[in-house]
Amino acid sequence: MDQTGSKMKIAVDAMGGDYAPGVVVEGVAQALYDYPDCEFTLVGHTAKLGFYLYKYGIANHPNLKLHHAETAVEMSDPSAISLRSKKNSSITECARLMKDGSVEALVSPGHTGALVAATKVLNRTLPGIDRPALAASLPHRHGRFILIDAGANPDCKPGNLVQFALMGEIYARFMLKKERPAIGLLSVGGEDGKGSSLTKTVFKALSGMPVNFVGNVESNSAFEGACDVLIADGFSGNVMLKTSEGLARLSVNWLKSAIRKNALRLTGALLAKNAFVELKSMGDADEIGGAPLLGINGVCIIGHGSSSPKAVRNAIRTARDAIRFRMNERISQRLAECRASVTDLESMF
Amino acid sequence: MDQTGSKMKIAVDAMGGDYAPGVVVEGVAQALYDYPDCEFTLVGHTAKLGFYLYKYGIANHPNLKLHHAETAVEMSDPSAISLRSKKNSSITECARLMKDGSVEALVSPGHTGALVAATKVLNRTLPGIDRPALAASLPHRHGRFILIDAGANPDCKPGNLVQFALMGEIYARFMLKKERPAIGLLSVGGEDGKGSSLTKTVFKALSGMPVNFVGNVESNSAFEGACDVLIADGFSGNVMLKTSEGLARLSVNWLKSAIRKNALRLTGALLAKNAFVELKSMGDADEIGGAPLLGINGVCIIGHGSSSPKAVRNAIRTARDAIRFRMNERISQRLAECRASVTDLESMF
Repeated sequence: MDQTGSKMKIAVDAMGGDYAPGVVVEGVAQALYDYPDCEFTLVGHTAKLGFYLYKYGIANHPNLKLHHAETAVEMSDPSAISLRSKKNSSITECARLMKDGSVEALVSPGHTGALVAATKVLNRTLPGIDRPALAASLPHRHGRFILIDAGANPDCKPGNLVQFALMGEIYARFMLKKERPAIGLLSVGGEDGKGSSLTKTVFKALSGMPVNFVGNVESNSAFEGACDVLIADGFSGNVMLKTSEGLARLSVNWLKSAIRKNALRLTGALLAKNAFVELKSMGDADEIGGAPLLGINGVCIIGHGSSSPKAVRNAIRTARDAIRFRMNERISQRLAECRASVTDLESMF
Repeated sequence: MDQTGSKMKIAVDAMGGDYAPGVVVEGVAQALYDYPDCEFTLVGHTAKLGFYLYKYGIANHPNLKLHHAETAVEMSDPSAISLRSKKNSSITECARLMKDGSVEALVSPGHTGALVAATKVLNRTLPGIDRPALAASLPHRHGRFILIDAGANPDCKPGNLVQFALMGEIYARFMLKKERPAIGLLSVGGEDGKGSSLTKTVFKALSGMPVNFVGNVESNSAFEGACDVLIADGFSGNVMLKTSEGLARLSVNWLKSAIRKNALRLTGALLAKNAFVELKSMGDADEIGGAPLLGINGVCIIGHGSSSPKAVRNAIRTARDAIRFRMNERISQRLAECRASVTDLESMF
């Protein structure tokens, strides 16, 4: 239940991701069991969903509704397609349900660009927020940190990054349970004067704001735990996120082929197997499940395209928690509190 | 010997890096033995070098000269210091020796920003090159790729990236022995239309040039081997480089602590030890030794601040190979060849 006692309403894009709709329906089945205080609207081509609803035994579940969407956005489609030739895609329908108040949150393991485009146009941003931003969670030596923007905005103005900092601060309070999270600015040198013209302007603005700003943070230091929230433009933030993914996969492949080279190594690896399992779980994206697109009117959680059922279920958990935490209300409050300290915000666009 | 039969002349910054001057002198001692066709000028505070020259038995080596530099740039110094308050630093003196023709190449495991600043002003860029760029080498699934610019220019115009592509192509011919290396553009989506306003302009320019341009490449795909040369602005390139470093260190630490948790795992890890050693060597930065700052009049190889003697020796090897390969001459030739295909290059600045 949310704070008013009624069920929380969440739309789930059944057609999003590489293994849709099977894994999404399976994830929703888990969530129906785990979160009886939620009501789910599964959005997709209903004729294609039937088989899976029966397979996972949720065809007649009282907390499940269906909503038909004729098409689906493919991962290779351009972002604007959700607003143009695929106006009746499952992504667009999810955004529409949130726009008309049928649901409070949407979850999609789908196309990030299409979700950003659809929610920006249909749901609009919160007052005082110019661009929504993707908040990803990455591991560091002692825990996790939030990277914002992880890819929603390839081109940013300084004012966008200032807003990302405030949204990231609120999300860290919720996600990391830290009241005054340390906020760092992704840059190419740890010293104050270093960086691009964009980061130098943002550095000055953040220095004058009532946040726990710890200055420039290089990407290697972020993995050492230099900050709780790392502020970046969406281009370099996305490069950082995808470099982590790519390198993690490369290392695992290397290790596997190095170990398979002889029997002694293989025996050793079997004995140490739990250590590898533990290592894998530390960087486990499925455990987090989804990254919120912050700054949208409504809660929007984006899962990885290759999400597992567990990841879908955990993305739903994040959506539910964000509703309960009243995240958007807190972001708006924080913006109002800080507006006085960034008087020249308009000049930063 | 270079092609004229005289010894190749290389200046080495003895005061650069975290373990200077000891590891630098040790690296030069190895290089003196391995490369009798080179003559080295060790640049640093001569009074501080004496002990190490005797320790490594090279005090009276016929192929070694000393050149005094009163000060040294610290890693925490701002980049411009090499041209302002530390005009007689070892970095500045190296650049000066290359300017007056005393040496053909310089090697420094020092402050990247200070080296860029000193060489840009004292040595200037090659004709047709507006900004020098750092070319780092990173591992992918089947070999290595070149990332250019890895951090020399935090702010770039489209025209800079076009020039980086041509310099990267020549360096890949030399470093990867590929005549027509696949050139990718670092972006936030693999599809043609994706990216920032910067990358979209560069995409169009590269598409019209006589290079083997394979389009946008996301950072995760680069680790799968999507291209031989990855073109980036110096900000996101540096984020990519340092994310790789940070994540590699984090993974090793995780694995170590997971393995130490019990005796069974530890035994297993000991049996599989060679697999770990092999894994480590695949990503070994010491093996590469240094990244060239391309586009400078003269050869400039920058080593990692924490370079080992082996890394210093290998950076010297790279400098020697670049002289023998006549890298700058080839870059200038390639620029001339391609100038016709990028007629609107000026509009990209």
